[in-house]
Amino acid sequence: MAKMKDIDFNKNKDGLVPAIAQDADSGEVLMLAYMNAEALRRTLKSGEAWFYSRSRQELWHKGETSGNIIKVSEVWKDCDSDTILIKGKPTGPVCHTGNPTCFFQQLSEKDVD
Amino acid sequence: MAKMKDIDFNKNKDGLVPAIAQDADSGEVLMLAYMNAEALRRTLKSGEAWFYSRSRQELWHKGETSGNIIKVSEVWKDCDSDTILIKGKPTGPVCHTGNPTCFFQQLSEKDVD
Repeated sequence: MAKMKDIDFNKNKDGLVPAIAQDADSGEVLMLAYMNAEALRRTLKSGEAWFYSRSRQELWHKGETSGNIIKVSEVWKDCDSDTILIKGKPTGPVCHTGNPTCFFQQLSEKDVD
Repeated sequence: MAKMKDIDFNKNKDGLVPAIAQDADSGEVLMLAYMNAEALRRTLKSGEAWFYSRSRQELWHKGETSGNIIKVSEVWKDCDSDTILIKGKPTGPVCHTGNPTCFFQQLSEKDVD
């Protein structure tokens, strides 16, 4: 069985792992942010997404300013225990730009340098 | 319009950005790995997923040993230009464990330290 203590928070020497947020219904990938152990703990306990803001260097309850939280239904870890996947339902646009997902700009072969 | 040169490969001071691979049909999140500029360039040009292996410190054509490549149909960047999302079809199990996805272990509140 997977346990939270299995997560390899020290792989990148910063106590953080990337965490992907996916819409539990549509399957749309919404955003990627980072979690420290406390953010993962709060996510598992509260059922709402918590991250660690690398720019502000503090715990970040997603939606604390925008009001657009993510209600988390499932938390998964990957085979190497260094990435988290959360599945949930956002209560509003996930992206700070107002887009429903942070992945709204597509790249193609013609965009190669 | 998004361009490859917009990608912020130096945010983490290692020339790499996380890249999420998602099944284009099922929406399942398959894996997370890292890309440098050359891996992204090769992915966009070849239509197959290339990453940069942090452990081997070399470019990594996904499937080069297993045979299980990912045929990429779409490449997206996020709002901060520091994460890539590729959508595609794997030709076999994506995970080195033989699982179709690397995210096969679920965490719940009882797994909190």
